Amino acid sequence: MLVFGVSRRTIEVAGDRVVVIDQTRLPGEVVERELVTLEDAAAAIRTMVVRGAPLIGVTAAFGVWLGLRVDPSDAGLAHATLALAATRPTAVNLRWALDRVRAAVAPLPVARREEAALALARRMADEDVAACEAIGRHGAAVLRARWEALGRPTPFQVLTHCNAGWLATVDWGTALAPLYRLHDEGIAMHVWADETRPRNQGLLTQWELSQHGVPCTLIVDNAGGLLATRGRVHACIVGADRIARNGDVCNKIGTYLKALAARDNGIPFLVAAPISTFDLETASGADIPIEERAASEVTTAAGVQVENPAFDVTPARLVDALITERGTCRAEEAAILDHAAQDGGAA
Amino acid sequence: MLVFGVSRRTIEVAGDRVVVIDQTRLPGEVVERELVTLEDAAAAIRTMVVRGAPLIGVTAAFGVWLGLRVDPSDAGLAHATLALAATRPTAVNLRWALDRVRAAVAPLPVARREEAALALARRMADEDVAACEAIGRHGAAVLRARWEALGRPTPFQVLTHCNAGWLATVDWGTALAPLYRLHDEGIAMHVWADETRPRNQGLLTQWELSQHGVPCTLIVDNAGGLLATRGRVHACIVGADRIARNGDVCNKIGTYLKALAARDNGIPFLVAAPISTFDLETASGADIPIEERAASEVTTAAGVQVENPAFDVTPARLVDALITERGTCRAEEAAILDHAAQDGGAA
Repeated sequence: MLVFGVSRRTIEVAGDRVVVIDQTRLPGEVVERELVTLEDAAAAIRTMVVRGAPLIGVTAAFGVWLGLRVDPSDAGLAHATLALAATRPTAVNLRWALDRVRAAVAPLPVARREEAALALARRMADEDVAACEAIGRHGAAVLRARWEALGRPTPFQVLTHCNAGWLATVDWGTALAPLYRLHDEGIAMHVWADETRPRNQGLLTQWELSQHGVPCTLIVDNAGGLLATRGRVHACIVGADRIARNGDVCNKIGTYLKALAARDNGIPFLVAAPISTFDLETASGADIPIEERAASEVTTAAGVQVENPAFDVTPARLVDALITERGTCRAEEAAILDHAAQDGGAA
Repeated sequence: MLVFGVSRRTIEVAGDRVVVIDQTRLPGEVVERELVTLEDAAAAIRTMVVRGAPLIGVTAAFGVWLGLRVDPSDAGLAHATLALAATRPTAVNLRWALDRVRAAVAPLPVARREEAALALARRMADEDVAACEAIGRHGAAVLRARWEALGRPTPFQVLTHCNAGWLATVDWGTALAPLYRLHDEGIAMHVWADETRPRNQGLLTQWELSQHGVPCTLIVDNAGGLLATRGRVHACIVGADRIARNGDVCNKIGTYLKALAARDNGIPFLVAAPISTFDLETASGADIPIEERAASEVTTAAGVQVENPAFDVTPARLVDALITERGTCRAEEAAILDHAAQDGGAA
């Protein structure tokens, strides 16, 4: 997507270094960080210089490459993967990416490992872009149909929660990918970006959409319901951290309230996520444990009792469509099992 | 209610001055302000040292008294009411209180006006306390029945939004009055206090409940839905800024989302407010204009597009009961007209 008018990815290779955007400095300023060593890559993930499950996974893959440049031995490979795995203990994508690189590199002669790791990390970045681009294509078709059905409102107003944009991936994003596509196709879009307390990821959404030229307005999380009742939201689209077998969607805390508001006002509620988000081992959202985060995210006042759950579960009955890189899918078990079993080439 | 173990009101008379708690300093510190002049009272309202419609009205009444102590002439009375009316242009209670004092004082000889204004301001404060105490009694009966029906859960967990507590009134509050009463009656209560972005009035709710010894946990506005789905909310109670003839409730932005979550989980959604909140001239919530406030309340980042509506409307169908100083009332036109027409002595 565009930053100061130039198309770029969140993570790029420049010679012998990896370049990322420091997301802890956004939206205030755009600062690039060069990752030269394994330790640089681990620190970037740990301190949330890079964030978002897909981007974390790709950064870790490049991190293994940086480690192997110094020490391509078995010990060096083990050290790199362990150091990177320890950065964000709950990130499933991180472990998945590291396992994949290790499995590909370990059988190779030491002399070929660095090159192979770099090639695989580049491929994983490209695969992420392709998946997100496909999500954008499928989601845009769903949203365009809604826009047509409403008589082509100008602007076409879409509400989103948290940041499921290109900043959380390598490019395009998940929930925001269809919005970028519609904008690029010439539909006048306007996005309502939920602030998303307590970590305020809405500021990232506002920044990245604005950089790409998509009009976007920041609102407090409380405001979306009112806007929906007053006809100012035509569709709602969010990402997902995990989708249970029955279609229940686990996503950033507050997503469920927006799904209720959408349903109460006849507004489509769409969930865009890669197939890897489906958790077929989990029967329903009730079985998903919810991460409780530090009280300090909510308040710095001492002695105040705070509860700070990070995610909630939107029941499948409130989800109008799941959108993946393979297309759309009804939020119910039979459809999900069928969708997940499809040949990946369908994208 | 209790502050540092001592029972007090938000506004009290001490000799020739009026003493209020500076709410702009809460919850960080408890600072009293002495209002000695008309200008002191006007500044206290304008700068939100005092806030909440009932408390603003009573403060204005005392402000007229302070003005008349310096100049009890017709010109002095006109000056005092005009200066106080200009402090918060949209506050209905403020105008109502000033009209009442002026009507009572204007016919009197100049020499008797100061004494009459003080007596009336004291009476208005006492009336507010009595109304809130009655709201607490009626609301406690509704909540106690819910608590009994659930098999007396310990603690009894209630979710509230914004601050409709004693800080917004002279004592007891509206939505919080029933909770104080149940606590005083010995039921183990636990209150979830929505942060209430963008102005974070949840911190006031957390502070005043904690001071009185009612366990309370602060949550972001996004979290209430999850808690409701996981059986951690037994009832939901909020205040109201305006109640339309059909029962639609206008209250702090975000109230509607909590009403949806309550309904979706079979949790009673209660609205506690004085009869004066009923706006029988307004047919439904769709006719209520919503105040749009400064973008700076949401973010200090320059150049960010922000929409900041202050209130939303909860449809009558989502409201399980209206609770006033006269008792409970179904959220529908016939019941409301009947309830509003009742003799005030029923409280």
